[in-house]
Amino acid sequence: MAFEFKLIRRVEFAETDMAGIVHFSNFFKYMENAEHAFYRSLGASVIMNHLNPPLGFPRVHAECDFKRPIRFEENLEIHLLVREKRAKVLSYLFKFRKVSEKGLSEEIARGILTVVCVAHHPDGSMGSVPIPDFLAQKIEVAPPELLA
Amino acid sequence: MAFEFKLIRRVEFAETDMAGIVHFSNFFKYMENAEHAFYRSLGASVIMNHLNPPLGFPRVHAECDFKRPIRFEENLEIHLLVREKRAKVLSYLFKFRKVSEKGLSEEIARGILTVVCVAHHPDGSMGSVPIPDFLAQKIEVAPPELLA
Amino acid sequence: MAFEFKLIRRVEFAETDMAGIVHFSNFFKYMENAEHAFYRSLGASVIMNHLNPPLGFPRVHAECDFKRPIRFEENLEIHLLVREKRAKVLSYLFKFRKVSEKGLSEEIARGILTVVCVAHHPDGSMGSVPIPDFLAQKIEVAPPELLA
Amino acid sequence: MAFEFKLIRRVEFAETDMAGIVHFSNFFKYMENAEHAFYRSLGASVIMNHLNPPLGFPRVHAECDFKRPIRFEENLEIHLLVREKRAKVLSYLFKFRKVSEKGLSEEIARGILTVVCVAHHPDGSMGSVPIPDFLAQKIEVAPPELLA
Repeated sequence: MAFEFKLIRRVEFAETDMAGIVHFSNFFKYMENAEHAFYRSLGASVIMNHLNPPLGFPRVHAECDFKRPIRFEENLEIHLLVREKRAKVLSYLFKFRKVSEKGLSEEIARGILTVVCVAHHPDGSMGSVPIPDFLAQKIEVAPPELLA
Repeated sequence: MAFEFKLIRRVEFAETDMAGIVHFSNFFKYMENAEHAFYRSLGASVIMNHLNPPLGFPRVHAECDFKRPIRFEENLEIHLLVREKRAKVLSYLFKFRKVSEKGLSEEIARGILTVVCVAHHPDGSMGSVPIPDFLAQKIEVAPPELLA
Repeated sequence: MAFEFKLIRRVEFAETDMAGIVHFSNFFKYMENAEHAFYRSLGASVIMNHLNPPLGFPRVHAECDFKRPIRFEENLEIHLLVREKRAKVLSYLFKFRKVSEKGLSEEIARGILTVVCVAHHPDGSMGSVPIPDFLAQKIEVAPPELLA
Repeated sequence: MAFEFKLIRRVEFAETDMAGIVHFSNFFKYMENAEHAFYRSLGASVIMNHLNPPLGFPRVHAECDFKRPIRFEENLEIHLLVREKRAKVLSYLFKFRKVSEKGLSEEIARGILTVVCVAHHPDGSMGSVPIPDFLAQKIEVAPPELLA
């Protein structure tokens, strides 16, 4: 049973903007990167086209509070925590910190991503369905003190 | 005094993902596009490097609820509404609708962007400052019924 | 018969990088934007999923020479010219110029995009096929003096 | 003296498009990623703001031939090879291959990136200058057989 995952990535040049810092929209890609790496760490992929019907996890909500800037070539730790688990829905909290020789910085940003499990039907329609057992069984909500 | 702005843009190929729809991170770029076009409609730019000290509007909060997908070459109306105005802070509500020959669709998504006015000091530091009068005087909060 | 198309777009904030100018990778998106708008001007779309088999135009070659920078909120003219037309292949030349009250600038950049028409078969494979007549009949190569 | 560098990265969801494959513009970001990692491997950064005047390496030419698609979660090897070294100019060849348990695939794509060393002067102007010795001394052109 897993309730967290940490991904470290180095800020790329193309992720910066003319203000000299990471463009805020990239934090949403970073969250998704950590989410997908979390599934891989559990032996799954966010894209389940091998199932019948194929399953996917569209985003229904995303948010982020930006506290400090981060710059080109700095290392960012993206700390994913499972904050909510329902039959068809998963919601994640993300804490962003800078990683340097001095250790971890204060929080750069904090975000939330909420996804719903959907089936893609042959007629092109899609509908929400329970998260498949092989994945749901491996995921649990993080302890409250980590979600504070 | 302005409290709203509407921007229409056509979905570009590079904005789609393998699920066949616009990648969710692009909605945050769309909000920013509408915000910047709003400033231009008031005779201003989000980048005020001609002032001394130069001013900017970093994002402190962004969120979006995703309700329906939107696809390549479809037209998206981004309706910006001023939801909050404080001395140093502006917050916007965005309603996304698809535009077609049949008119406007139901809401595709709804988002919020909150920005703070900051001065960039010569020593590289920055600090929040009041929004300059020439801009603040032109912006007012939208009527409550539009923000519902 | 069309051999050219002009698209004007304003540089967006998220397209800039920490050097204060448009990130070079965006010029390739700009070329594609103009290409797709060219098809639309001919009553077609680059995505032909309504045909059986569905057709598409994957890129086989792209290049760009960068001569001058372009910045946030500046207007860019993307001038598409058909430089080569073969049964299954189209190749485009793009001339980028800045648009301002003073008129058109010198060339900012010049690029090439070469695409091939492919059919997507039901088994997932794809193979090159002739460009469909309804599109091919509307496209011709630009005069040599425009391609210089 | 270094003439090559290899970077492996996993394809991210946001890098795909509605055709189900990596959008071609991302290959240019991949080249830049490998270039910047190459400088880091030599103890340098592409951004030399600590020098007086600050130096940078704007792109003057970029091109890519696309041979095979690559998909979400596949691993891509980006093999950088120095193909040309002049006083003020560096040009790189990039060979892209898929990495799997079966080893390296055939080439997915092949690209070129040519950059020039420029100084940013206090008045905002910039001009080409020789590549600084501490970097130039560490870089040599790859053997011809590797560039074939």
